[in-house]
Amino acid sequence: MDKIGIREAIKKLALLKTEAMYLNDFLLTWDKSRDEIEATFAVAEILKGLRKANISSRAFDSGLAISLFRDNSTRTRFSFASASNLLGLTIQDLDEGKSQIAHGETVRETANMVSFMADVIGIRDDMYIGKGNTYMRQVAQSVQEGYDAGILEQRPTLVNLQCDIDHPTQSMSDAMHIINHFGGVERLKGKKIAMSWAYSPSYGKPLSVPQGIVGLMTRFGMEVVLAHPKGYEIMPEVEEVAQKNAADSGGSFSKTNNMAEAFQDADVVYPKSWAPFAAMEKRTDLYGQGDMDGIKALEKELLTQNAEFKDWECTEELMQSSKDGRALYMHCLPADITGVSCEQGEVQASVFDRYRDPLYKEASYKPYVVAAMILLAKFPNPAEKLMQMLERDRPRVF
Amino acid sequence: MDKIGIREAIKKLALLKTEAMYLNDFLLTWDKSRDEIEATFAVAEILKGLRKANISSRAFDSGLAISLFRDNSTRTRFSFASASNLLGLTIQDLDEGKSQIAHGETVRETANMVSFMADVIGIRDDMYIGKGNTYMRQVAQSVQEGYDAGILEQRPTLVNLQCDIDHPTQSMSDAMHIINHFGGVERLKGKKIAMSWAYSPSYGKPLSVPQGIVGLMTRFGMEVVLAHPKGYEIMPEVEEVAQKNAADSGGSFSKTNNMAEAFQDADVVYPKSWAPFAAMEKRTDLYGQGDMDGIKALEKELLTQNAEFKDWECTEELMQSSKDGRALYMHCLPADITGVSCEQGEVQASVFDRYRDPLYKEASYKPYVVAAMILLAKFPNPAEKLMQMLERDRPRVF
Amino acid sequence: MDKIGIREAIKKLALLKTEAMYLNDFLLTWDKSRDEIEATFAVAEILKGLRKANISSRAFDSGLAISLFRDNSTRTRFSFASASNLLGLTIQDLDEGKSQIAHGETVRETANMVSFMADVIGIRDDMYIGKGNTYMRQVAQSVQEGYDAGILEQRPTLVNLQCDIDHPTQSMSDAMHIINHFGGVERLKGKKIAMSWAYSPSYGKPLSVPQGIVGLMTRFGMEVVLAHPKGYEIMPEVEEVAQKNAADSGGSFSKTNNMAEAFQDADVVYPKSWAPFAAMEKRTDLYGQGDMDGIKALEKELLTQNAEFKDWECTEELMQSSKDGRALYMHCLPADITGVSCEQGEVQASVFDRYRDPLYKEASYKPYVVAAMILLAKFPNPAEKLMQMLERDRPRVF
Repeated sequence: MDKIGIREAIKKLALLKTEAMYLNDFLLTWDKSRDEIEATFAVAEILKGLRKANISSRAFDSGLAISLFRDNSTRTRFSFASASNLLGLTIQDLDEGKSQIAHGETVRETANMVSFMADVIGIRDDMYIGKGNTYMRQVAQSVQEGYDAGILEQRPTLVNLQCDIDHPTQSMSDAMHIINHFGGVERLKGKKIAMSWAYSPSYGKPLSVPQGIVGLMTRFGMEVVLAHPKGYEIMPEVEEVAQKNAADSGGSFSKTNNMAEAFQDADVVYPKSWAPFAAMEKRTDLYGQGDMDGIKALEKELLTQNAEFKDWECTEELMQSSKDGRALYMHCLPADITGVSCEQGEVQASVFDRYRDPLYKEASYKPYVVAAMILLAKFPNPAEKLMQMLERDRPRVF
Repeated sequence: MDKIGIREAIKKLALLKTEAMYLNDFLLTWDKSRDEIEATFAVAEILKGLRKANISSRAFDSGLAISLFRDNSTRTRFSFASASNLLGLTIQDLDEGKSQIAHGETVRETANMVSFMADVIGIRDDMYIGKGNTYMRQVAQSVQEGYDAGILEQRPTLVNLQCDIDHPTQSMSDAMHIINHFGGVERLKGKKIAMSWAYSPSYGKPLSVPQGIVGLMTRFGMEVVLAHPKGYEIMPEVEEVAQKNAADSGGSFSKTNNMAEAFQDADVVYPKSWAPFAAMEKRTDLYGQGDMDGIKALEKELLTQNAEFKDWECTEELMQSSKDGRALYMHCLPADITGVSCEQGEVQASVFDRYRDPLYKEASYKPYVVAAMILLAKFPNPAEKLMQMLERDRPRVF
Repeated sequence: MDKIGIREAIKKLALLKTEAMYLNDFLLTWDKSRDEIEATFAVAEILKGLRKANISSRAFDSGLAISLFRDNSTRTRFSFASASNLLGLTIQDLDEGKSQIAHGETVRETANMVSFMADVIGIRDDMYIGKGNTYMRQVAQSVQEGYDAGILEQRPTLVNLQCDIDHPTQSMSDAMHIINHFGGVERLKGKKIAMSWAYSPSYGKPLSVPQGIVGLMTRFGMEVVLAHPKGYEIMPEVEEVAQKNAADSGGSFSKTNNMAEAFQDADVVYPKSWAPFAAMEKRTDLYGQGDMDGIKALEKELLTQNAEFKDWECTEELMQSSKDGRALYMHCLPADITGVSCEQGEVQASVFDRYRDPLYKEASYKPYVVAAMILLAKFPNPAEKLMQMLERDRPRVF
């Protein structure tokens, strides 16, 4: 996208209704209108264009971006850091181990105490069902109250960097990848995407990726198929969201317990392991009760259950059955690759290798998606602001 | 404070004598003259005004702010990060676990090695009596020597982020809160403030907050009362400082072993747990000797001693006895709230809840206080510099 | 260096051939031409001059500098942070413990995943023979492939912050120290430098410092003597490099097992402990085999072996035997100082004390060396860029 293209994209962005995103958070894609979703893609593409044209999109001369990771992370951590840096914000990690949170602070208190000069708070909290998203909403409410009471001079916006329900920065990046692959969001209509469970020797992987995918891809009129063995159901609420989305967008949402059926004629396949929702709920309860023996027993049970479905693997044969034998293979990474990262995993090595560059490209959208979410929440008129950046023409690299 | 107000405040600042703060450190409030204390408040208010007016107070285009935390911290860590960021400095954490300090480096060596491009060093070292402040002075002397010898191109300024003696960023923020509450530093004269011990189920909390409060509030002509059970004395040197300050400022400093007496007609109350000075000295010695059994025995003894004073709680009844029943309740946070963060603590939940917004407001001054300390140490003519920032009128948020 | 001096230095820099450094890495000094080595010194001096003249050398309005430390570090960590900050880049630490690297990611994947907005990657990986430099080359190749495939929008440059073979940021800083001490790189010709093993009670110190020194100092026509007890040989490949360099530069490279011989009439002495290459290779193999008992046995053996050479100490007597009794004493720090950091160590306390200021000065070049390496890799015409910075005349401190 050259400067003329950027200008055109900004003009299109100006036509979208994004007022409700201002001073708001990004927690679930299905909380956002279709205009808001498209605006997020548009801003991400514009920021990408600006950076390629060596035009700085620094919007803040000072300001903190707080990151709170309650689970390990490489790509999301670096995406959040990259996005914040791109806009001029400085990461300050809230490391709960080094803080006084253990000393009896409430969420409300901590949220305010760290936010006096914070413009953004990014949180990953995906370990326990019913907890992560709830925690994010508590933080959002706390800073809203602080802002309303005049304690905070600005309202930090919350970005969900993965919770128990959704992984919006992932699913939005995935969507940008598909859009670019097929040449426009309008071309997604009628395309079949298979979000399929796949075997992994580990257990307890979050549900937020499959949930995020079926919750988002159903917005674009796609034929979304969710495939998994019996017992690996996702949250029923998210299935309802997907059903409703599909009805609204003129697409479909269906389920199957047959991986081959899902792959048949698929335009896009997303084979990935996850843990059964019911088991994750049970684990959360066991943690709550401090029942470590119960957890160990559950882990053993789950690994045994997993092992029954080793044939849920994305093989060359399965790929052959997809549309013209060349569906777009997707993954949030890291993948469990048979014979590479584990003995038997989610995908055959030759399939993975063939899609390596597209997979990395898929991941490359995330920093821009995060930056777009921030920018849309911090500026009442994002198109005007981006046009000013384009005209300011300040070089990113001197 | 609007732009006209900022301009007026800068003009008043220019009348204060602050030359001795230039290239100096901020270690104890009582090392600073009355003009220097007031200049710190003034710069903090001006920086707050600039930020509210969306005027960047970025003073550094590059430069490091080193943080060294030898104890857990949330709000002070974020205050230091916010202040550094506001001025354009980048935090670099000196994590002793990841460094080679264990490999036999001296304080002098480390201080110089990290400071080649450091403009500020912030240290929290509050665990051991006789150690923290001493360490800070060693670091300050080391970088002074390095600067004098031409090894360091700039003299990093040291900011005490809490030591065994004082907690100046806390007490100065607390003072700003009181000043704003009563409408001017001149209105503090004659106001009664009760710095009172309160019960907490934990033990060994630092003395630096009560010491910092009596060491600072006696500067403004206040009636400062220090209340604690017998055996919970603070450092005698600080009591002497408070006596002297009170004599100089026309206020008073008195002590009592009766919490109710302290609260009677108080305009401000600051009920908070701390450890007895004598016990902390003993603990420091035991650590020095590596006597872990001795430490355990001491902890047990202290918890037993604490438990005798569970009635030292800031109750609604006590609050009623304060001036017009509505003294300003203060705390450095996090507080031990009865029935919330512990079974029995420093303060009744209803009292804490009623003062939640003012407490958060109290904390909100800290980033500006830290930034003011830095700015006053780095610029020979701070008023001129702030006026230039006002006139530069560079937006914080584009 | 004043502004006129800076301008002159930039003009001289423009005459050096540095094109091959653009979009390249800095892994081993002997991979670089003599012009490239001199350009690195020149850029470092110019950046130092600019900073002293309070002229900002900020070259990036945004961008990440990734740091990966697989071993403890204070001065190199802060040097990398200082250099990145000086140029406008923001450090993002790749903490392998907090990442998903353990979850089966390949080097290639991680390198790309973190680099979407990374301009530089600095790595310390010095623990295992045959590993560190190899790992760096894998990372470099991975990001090159990502850049070539259009996944990365910029090619992050790799800076070796110490590997198993070389420690170029150290040896280059050391060289700058010597050059400044003797008044010009051309005056190094014929000067004798003794890189000598010295006793330390610890064991297993990396070989990269002595290897880096003999690999670099032989470039300048110096008489380089490597001294160590029998059994403390360095990597034979590096000895070959030193021989070749000496032949090319008109200097010499010789070895001795006699410390006194090395010190005799030396202009510069660099006494420092290191582990025998053969033993380090063996340790690497034992780690590879997970043979912890073998490692313990080896450590014991090495400590015993070390203890035979306690007389390899840099004493006042030895210093007396150097050129005019006043050779320049050097060390990468921290040193094992007899009676200070250990009972018996590498150097007598009085020698160390006498050279403390020069030693700190020696270390002070490192941030500028790192910044020079980055700048030369990121700009096709570094002289032009530096001239623009000089003319931009943007203050570092407002």
